[in-house]
Amino acid sequence: MNPWFSKRAVLAALGVLLMSFTTTHADEGMWLFNNPPLKVLKDRHNFTPTKEWLEHVQQSSVRFNSGGSGSFVSEDGLVMTNHHVGADNLQKLSDEKHNYLRDGFHAKTRSEEKRCTDLELNVLLSIEDVTDKVNAAVKPGMSAEEAFKARRAIQAQIEKEALAGKDAKKFRADVVTLYQGGQYHLYHFRRYVDVRLVFAPEQQIAFFGGDPDNFEYPRYDLDCCFFRVYEDDKPVKLKHYLRWSKAGAKDNELVFVSGHPGRTSRLNTMAELEYMRDKQFPNTMNILNRLEVMLSVYSGRSEENSRRAKDELFGVQNSRKARDGGLAGLLDPGLMGRKKSDEQKLREAVAKDAKLKDAMPSWDNIAKAQDEIGKVAQRYNMLERGFGFNSHLFGTARTLVRAAEERAKPDGDRLREFRSSNEEPLKLQLYSDEPIHDDFEIVKLADSLTFLCSQLGSTDPLVRKVLNGKSPRQRAAELITGSKLKDVDTRKKLYDGGAKAVDASQDPLLALAKLVDKDAREVRKIVETQSEIKQQAYGQLAKAKFAVEGTSTYPDATFTLRLAFGTVKGFEENGKKVPFETTFAGLFQRSDEQKNRPPFDLPERWIKLRPQLEKDKAFMNTPFNFVCTADIIGGNSGSPVINQEGEVVGLIFDGNIQSLVLDFVYTDDVARAVSVHSAGIVEALRKVYKADSVADELIGKK
Amino acid sequence: MNPWFSKRAVLAALGVLLMSFTTTHADEGMWLFNNPPLKVLKDRHNFTPTKEWLEHVQQSSVRFNSGGSGSFVSEDGLVMTNHHVGADNLQKLSDEKHNYLRDGFHAKTRSEEKRCTDLELNVLLSIEDVTDKVNAAVKPGMSAEEAFKARRAIQAQIEKEALAGKDAKKFRADVVTLYQGGQYHLYHFRRYVDVRLVFAPEQQIAFFGGDPDNFEYPRYDLDCCFFRVYEDDKPVKLKHYLRWSKAGAKDNELVFVSGHPGRTSRLNTMAELEYMRDKQFPNTMNILNRLEVMLSVYSGRSEENSRRAKDELFGVQNSRKARDGGLAGLLDPGLMGRKKSDEQKLREAVAKDAKLKDAMPSWDNIAKAQDEIGKVAQRYNMLERGFGFNSHLFGTARTLVRAAEERAKPDGDRLREFRSSNEEPLKLQLYSDEPIHDDFEIVKLADSLTFLCSQLGSTDPLVRKVLNGKSPRQRAAELITGSKLKDVDTRKKLYDGGAKAVDASQDPLLALAKLVDKDAREVRKIVETQSEIKQQAYGQLAKAKFAVEGTSTYPDATFTLRLAFGTVKGFEENGKKVPFETTFAGLFQRSDEQKNRPPFDLPERWIKLRPQLEKDKAFMNTPFNFVCTADIIGGNSGSPVINQEGEVVGLIFDGNIQSLVLDFVYTDDVARAVSVHSAGIVEALRKVYKADSVADELIGKK
Repeated sequence: MNPWFSKRAVLAALGVLLMSFTTTHADEGMWLFNNPPLKVLKDRHNFTPTKEWLEHVQQSSVRFNSGGSGSFVSEDGLVMTNHHVGADNLQKLSDEKHNYLRDGFHAKTRSEEKRCTDLELNVLLSIEDVTDKVNAAVKPGMSAEEAFKARRAIQAQIEKEALAGKDAKKFRADVVTLYQGGQYHLYHFRRYVDVRLVFAPEQQIAFFGGDPDNFEYPRYDLDCCFFRVYEDDKPVKLKHYLRWSKAGAKDNELVFVSGHPGRTSRLNTMAELEYMRDKQFPNTMNILNRLEVMLSVYSGRSEENSRRAKDELFGVQNSRKARDGGLAGLLDPGLMGRKKSDEQKLREAVAKDAKLKDAMPSWDNIAKAQDEIGKVAQRYNMLERGFGFNSHLFGTARTLVRAAEERAKPDGDRLREFRSSNEEPLKLQLYSDEPIHDDFEIVKLADSLTFLCSQLGSTDPLVRKVLNGKSPRQRAAELITGSKLKDVDTRKKLYDGGAKAVDASQDPLLALAKLVDKDAREVRKIVETQSEIKQQAYGQLAKAKFAVEGTSTYPDATFTLRLAFGTVKGFEENGKKVPFETTFAGLFQRSDEQKNRPPFDLPERWIKLRPQLEKDKAFMNTPFNFVCTADIIGGNSGSPVINQEGEVVGLIFDGNIQSLVLDFVYTDDVARAVSVHSAGIVEALRKVYKADSVADELIGKK
Repeated sequence: MNPWFSKRAVLAALGVLLMSFTTTHADEGMWLFNNPPLKVLKDRHNFTPTKEWLEHVQQSSVRFNSGGSGSFVSEDGLVMTNHHVGADNLQKLSDEKHNYLRDGFHAKTRSEEKRCTDLELNVLLSIEDVTDKVNAAVKPGMSAEEAFKARRAIQAQIEKEALAGKDAKKFRADVVTLYQGGQYHLYHFRRYVDVRLVFAPEQQIAFFGGDPDNFEYPRYDLDCCFFRVYEDDKPVKLKHYLRWSKAGAKDNELVFVSGHPGRTSRLNTMAELEYMRDKQFPNTMNILNRLEVMLSVYSGRSEENSRRAKDELFGVQNSRKARDGGLAGLLDPGLMGRKKSDEQKLREAVAKDAKLKDAMPSWDNIAKAQDEIGKVAQRYNMLERGFGFNSHLFGTARTLVRAAEERAKPDGDRLREFRSSNEEPLKLQLYSDEPIHDDFEIVKLADSLTFLCSQLGSTDPLVRKVLNGKSPRQRAAELITGSKLKDVDTRKKLYDGGAKAVDASQDPLLALAKLVDKDAREVRKIVETQSEIKQQAYGQLAKAKFAVEGTSTYPDATFTLRLAFGTVKGFEENGKKVPFETTFAGLFQRSDEQKNRPPFDLPERWIKLRPQLEKDKAFMNTPFNFVCTADIIGGNSGSPVINQEGEVVGLIFDGNIQSLVLDFVYTDDVARAVSVHSAGIVEALRKVYKADSVADELIGKK
């Protein structure tokens, strides 16, 4: 619900917090729109995007705040993204009688389009460099704790000023930290919250091959989904949206990906990488394995359970496979050797240049700070990140308890998520009427309370208070069944009533959130303070890197809009060539090879139409999925793949297994981004789903 | 392969090593055949088994050394057990073209019966008390290490002497530790190794409801499987075997269960229970979750993978659900309060009685020893128990390396599994030609080497040597593909050739096993020494218990033959009565409720016959599964349920979810043992499988 407890945020929280930068190789880079890779595009691909081209692509790009990317693909506000990005909303729109996530959805008329419960889309309007302003607020001689507070305060102030006089329901302003403190940019966003579902295929075909084929290639997935943005109950009219390419992606073509890569850790110091390898990733795998088993077991009990847990289970499996690949990278002496030698080179350059002497202690400072974070990591994960309280309603309770306390403070002193400029997004989540199921909440909370006992010890004084003399199962049951927070009006009254209303409430989950809050805040403070130390040190390293290698580089991914580019091409695997594209014919073949057993089974609709489709050679040979060398990572899901004319030629939905090291290094030997082909989308819409209205809108046919 | 690495042993190794004793309540107890519960049977049930009755039941009972129980059910050596006990062998008999585990098997004639690759069955012939002999070898003043060695040596000597002049292929002798050192008994076994598969149903019906319904009730599972014991290529002729009851189990009937409960921990001290709650079970859950995800992922890739991993995945899921229930018990303040108060009472009794003063320091000694074990537990699990080297072939390599070293020593100095009296069972496993699949071995070994890095740290000097500059995946691939140990003749040559042959071999897995052996032995020695301290302390506590509460009690489960008894009856759950039995009609209903989705789908054969079966009222109303209050635990799977006449009325295959605390305390409020009903077995054999020959043999019809 709140940023630490929504199921997607729980997964995001498993990621790494740091970012850094690197020198670029080949088609490398997740570039800022205000610092595009003009030189390398010119040198390698003889292409120079104009200012208008860049602005058009930027403003046609859409961020899904539920965790993903998208793009406008018609002047009437049609938004394209992945099925697995929309899945969260498909799940929330479904109930025991309508399973849109599994069965798909098609609004034949606009009046049938279904409004999402709590989906927020953002469009980046402009970027302003506020580095000097932010740095001026952090005075020399400040302690790390003071520096952290000063930085938080100035960011909140800049954001508040940026929204002054604007409608906070329609605009959003965020100060984002780039190059790990090397730069601070103010992002001005257009904000859309009336987003309606237009079309989704069945999950079987969107995620054909399931977990076994996830992060693999060749693939055969119709991983697309369409929404429409409304304002004042009417579809928006857009100036910037992407036209559809007639031809679609071709072999060896230069393409662009405009989207929101989540996190990378490419220039973390060796000390941090080793921490990730030996502590963080192993802990994360422990958590993910546990969640996967718990959700699989719950799902196995009935079809309805399976429906309720589906999107969450997908998210966990997806993260597990990604982390597994990332850890394999960290355990690969080749990769780590390359990182070590890069670090050594920078250390030597810094040692030689007196102007860079401030950077000298950075490596040690980062290592020490990371060590301090490591000491409290377990407690931080359990108490603050919420792995000890895996319950949507507990997240709601914590938001209410903290909002009551934080909103009474000056803006700059609040926990960052409660800054005034973030109130509308916060309320959108808090007041969402998405379905909540008691039995599922109890299972998750009982499991996480058990985990809390295992991680902190069942004799820990706080753990004893949390359990209150009950077993985890008994306690979870009494907390969930005793709470009234499922009711949206109750939440509104508690939020509006502030501390007085919260204090007067007898709700057991509010009481629990209060009980835990002191310890959770304490451990959060330690992590924030140590992160400030790391941030300052990385800032010094960034300066040194700029001095040594120049500023034509890109920051680590931060779920802000980036432009990547690459070449459409296949790769070699175990001595065999893997062609760049697949076709619908290949889909049927793959399903047959696997004897149509799940998750290689086709939807009913495809099985029925198959004899007819197989006679249609044009259909069978239509490109379905393809790969390119663009530099992407989780969060890029749903990004449009664009040709030089700025037209859609595909839709990013995955990376191959070799791409899972992209968290740490870029490589284009065999790592590839995987997309749905634009031609495959239109062909399936027309011939399988009879959704000509959507297809016509895409190609601009009136 | 060897006791630490066979997949079943890996799971068994996750269990607890200690045993203890308790005072009895109601239908409590896993009784020794030489100390049966005559008084309580007389008092509660007005029944007194004769000496002949006991001997007959004992010698009709069969231990599956792969991990389970069974019984002779015809004079021609027919053995009944669970499908899930036979599963290991069904798996090994299968290949890419024959999936007996999934599809079942029926030998219509004796010549079609299929010999298992490495199955050993044991029948307990007699028991001899050797307590004084064992205790006499451990002299006062010996250090724990010396005491451990002396105890190991005298046990090996007694066993060797017991086999002197006997055919080691046909007999077996084990000294078993009971009442945690309170008593030592010498068990004389008949040994059978030519065991052939006669009948197994499809896994779908044997394990109908799968993991979701595992450890639940009501149930609808035909969890049975029949083998036949041969000698000299002919079926054995038996004096002792169980006749089939005409009526089968009836409500409120007194019944007996004769089988091999694996482990219980009912009178572990509080210090040990707390260790289990806070350390051991959490670690075990981490390991099991990891294995479950790894095996599920491997299985998802293809039908053939799924076949290869099926039995192992079942084992892991079964353990995970059992441990999950056990941990819930340990986290239940009610249960732990009861344990605490029991311990307090004994402490007070000991404090009051000068004769028991030797027991006074026992609690502290156990706590301290457990603490020492805890310090090396992670390393012990990884290096010695093999969780860092999860590969069948690595297990083989370790057995060969150690056998070469151990067999050169006097019998009493060897690691216990290499004692001369155990050579035949060891060779049966070592020379098994069960199928081994390189790809599966690589996946498991890569995963466990990654886990090794996570647990011991990738900079641990031994871990670095193990990986030899490679990533876990690269290293696993080179080790498995480079090894020749898949070849049984190679193993024979290496075993027979001893140290010289092993030293001369270039096999990379042998080299790895040698590399790890010093560290693995060191950590094993620490655990064995501390376990000796615990054993001596528990011995003192046992004496005190005998003095305070009398000797009419039973030791904790140790996978030795026990007699339990109980009453056939239903129970209450959430205020609703759960009847004692289910019927075939209920099976169809349950499948329909769940829309026949896996694992609630019926086998093809059952679907085809369903219209015909539904017209047959006798069939539809036949009892299928039932519950009773007998005191059982894992290892009892496959035990016969016997009436007062010594006839089979059912076949144990599970406990309900409420029974999962039986590891720590007995309760008959709602905990129940779950069985297949004898009538259901015969009815299914005749009407569904047309296996009248088997049914006729069971009921003694010629």
